[in-house]
Amino acid sequence: MYGLERKKIVGEDNVYDFSIGNPRSTTPQVATDTLKKLLDEDPVSLHAYSVAAGHDEVREQIADYISKTYDYPASPENIFVTTGAAEAIASVMCAIAVEGEEVIVIAPYFPEYSVWIKNALATPVEVMADPETFQIDVNAVKAAITDKTAAVIINSPCNPTGAIYSEQNIKDLSAVLNDADHKIYLVCDEPYRKINYGKAVPWVPKYYEHTIVCDSASKTLSMPGERIGHVFCNDKKAFDAISGSARALGHVCAPVLFQRMYGKCIDVQPDVSVYDTNRKLLTKMFDELGITYVDPQGAFYLWAKSPCEDFVQKCMDRDILVVPSDSFGIQGWFRIGYCVSTEMILNSMLAWKRVMANVNN
Amino acid sequence: MYGLERKKIVGEDNVYDFSIGNPRSTTPQVATDTLKKLLDEDPVSLHAYSVAAGHDEVREQIADYISKTYDYPASPENIFVTTGAAEAIASVMCAIAVEGEEVIVIAPYFPEYSVWIKNALATPVEVMADPETFQIDVNAVKAAITDKTAAVIINSPCNPTGAIYSEQNIKDLSAVLNDADHKIYLVCDEPYRKINYGKAVPWVPKYYEHTIVCDSASKTLSMPGERIGHVFCNDKKAFDAISGSARALGHVCAPVLFQRMYGKCIDVQPDVSVYDTNRKLLTKMFDELGITYVDPQGAFYLWAKSPCEDFVQKCMDRDILVVPSDSFGIQGWFRIGYCVSTEMILNSMLAWKRVMANVNN
Repeated sequence: MYGLERKKIVGEDNVYDFSIGNPRSTTPQVATDTLKKLLDEDPVSLHAYSVAAGHDEVREQIADYISKTYDYPASPENIFVTTGAAEAIASVMCAIAVEGEEVIVIAPYFPEYSVWIKNALATPVEVMADPETFQIDVNAVKAAITDKTAAVIINSPCNPTGAIYSEQNIKDLSAVLNDADHKIYLVCDEPYRKINYGKAVPWVPKYYEHTIVCDSASKTLSMPGERIGHVFCNDKKAFDAISGSARALGHVCAPVLFQRMYGKCIDVQPDVSVYDTNRKLLTKMFDELGITYVDPQGAFYLWAKSPCEDFVQKCMDRDILVVPSDSFGIQGWFRIGYCVSTEMILNSMLAWKRVMANVNN
Repeated sequence: MYGLERKKIVGEDNVYDFSIGNPRSTTPQVATDTLKKLLDEDPVSLHAYSVAAGHDEVREQIADYISKTYDYPASPENIFVTTGAAEAIASVMCAIAVEGEEVIVIAPYFPEYSVWIKNALATPVEVMADPETFQIDVNAVKAAITDKTAAVIINSPCNPTGAIYSEQNIKDLSAVLNDADHKIYLVCDEPYRKINYGKAVPWVPKYYEHTIVCDSASKTLSMPGERIGHVFCNDKKAFDAISGSARALGHVCAPVLFQRMYGKCIDVQPDVSVYDTNRKLLTKMFDELGITYVDPQGAFYLWAKSPCEDFVQKCMDRDILVVPSDSFGIQGWFRIGYCVSTEMILNSMLAWKRVMANVNN
């Protein structure tokens, strides 16, 4: 909002807005073509209700994709199509946690997690990531587990850090969860899975039995406003509970036109080249300016250490907008969204230099 | 589900399925054309997030329509675009009721109301409609009001009774609510507003200040699976609470392509001729068969008195599927959905006669 107001005053080109997380890579043409083609079908059938879990055909397409891509057995009965990852996670929280239970989140984390956990009458328990690598600090998770722990939520590639949790990190986490004396669900929020720069994103259900994966088309197909995604859950009891809680939250079915498109385009790979270009430009610039950051392995966020206490304000004074890390549950860092035009990054360089000159004086 | 199974066994044409509530009137061509035209816009902007309450332009179109149609002042700030009426009502319930409060529903009623009320940790309180006319029994509502009553939900035209609450009925209800010694919200669920057969549907905010209206495109545009609708609420505090509760329920924004179409098509009138034909056929047949029913004024449901105790089962024995009234909170009636083909009604006549012959012997 501040960004929009400021742009009105000083002009759009003079505000360097790195605060947003709207995908910039274009929506794949095949998605648009699929939507148009579907609109030629009989509209009454096309727009009719589907069952709550989604059209059978769509659930099958998603399950087939999972089976083939991760060499992991998935069936349509494991797929619940949702109105985006938000509804997915909100429903999963209500399904697996009851009043008074705890859900562990890895800080820094997407702030909505705590809204959805609290809506399930459960309590979010923050566990700091490793402060150097921003991988999961598995020992800290272990220390935070109590007899009230219902679940752990992880997000890889991570918003806001850009980290991808390594296979070893996931294995270590699984060992800790398996050691617990009751069942703990591992909820994987994976909207950025396909936005990565070469490092593999482990398919977590392979490593831990009680895994529930939430995914969406928002970033992959660059259509976050369309609200389409799915839950993968092969635990029948949890699946039925998700269905029940989704209903209570006002979910009838995921929007059916986008369901059908989503199923047909589930194997589409996004073009991450613009993000990759931006990522390289920014990390090179930060190297030159002496700003410390976490190696951005996925998503389109760069997580960097504030060189001084009022750094976010100093940036704002030069019309550079970034998100302070306290929005994500920790102090002393800031987030840059590099889902912006490459031109804006190039144009911002002088402003960044001035900010750093101010910091160093 | 039974219907689908049975159709597989005896053939689609031999099952007379009056149990469903899926619109049959075709989706207006203008809606399809609008969707296709929107898909020619720049996809990244088209599919981007909107703010939670919906695109400004869409909220303005809806507010303008309300102002013009009901001669009632509505502004975009009163409109919250939702993922269908279900999300609308679920969010409104969480917004206006707190744990331990009560929400009055007029039986027979849409069963999901109680799911959404309970999700808000409130208690549904059933008040029977007038047993002859199925208008609101205002004295019974008055008797049911306690200091814990947060809201009353009404649904006009009504699913399952087909009744439209008259202006006098709404005025009487308003008087009772105004007499209460605390603020009680009147939540109007109005997806069938435009599906009526000549009788006016009063615009309730004109009669009662604390009215919140929930509406959707599901029946009007024959696209229930697309999940698009809105809340009208001119109480700023309640509006902000709806925004907060929608967020907690996993709502980020209503699907944006359908938002845009919905705004542009908000003044489209549905073709109710197929429903009207079916309505006349069925009431004539029921008159001949001696089955008592409530005058169907709106929606596409006929609410009729069971001539005997096991009537629904007797229908089922002749492959006529209807919904027993206990699904809607009362005994001794059944619901027919006449959003079916006229041909099916004609074909079902012999089966109806046989059922009634069985009843009368």
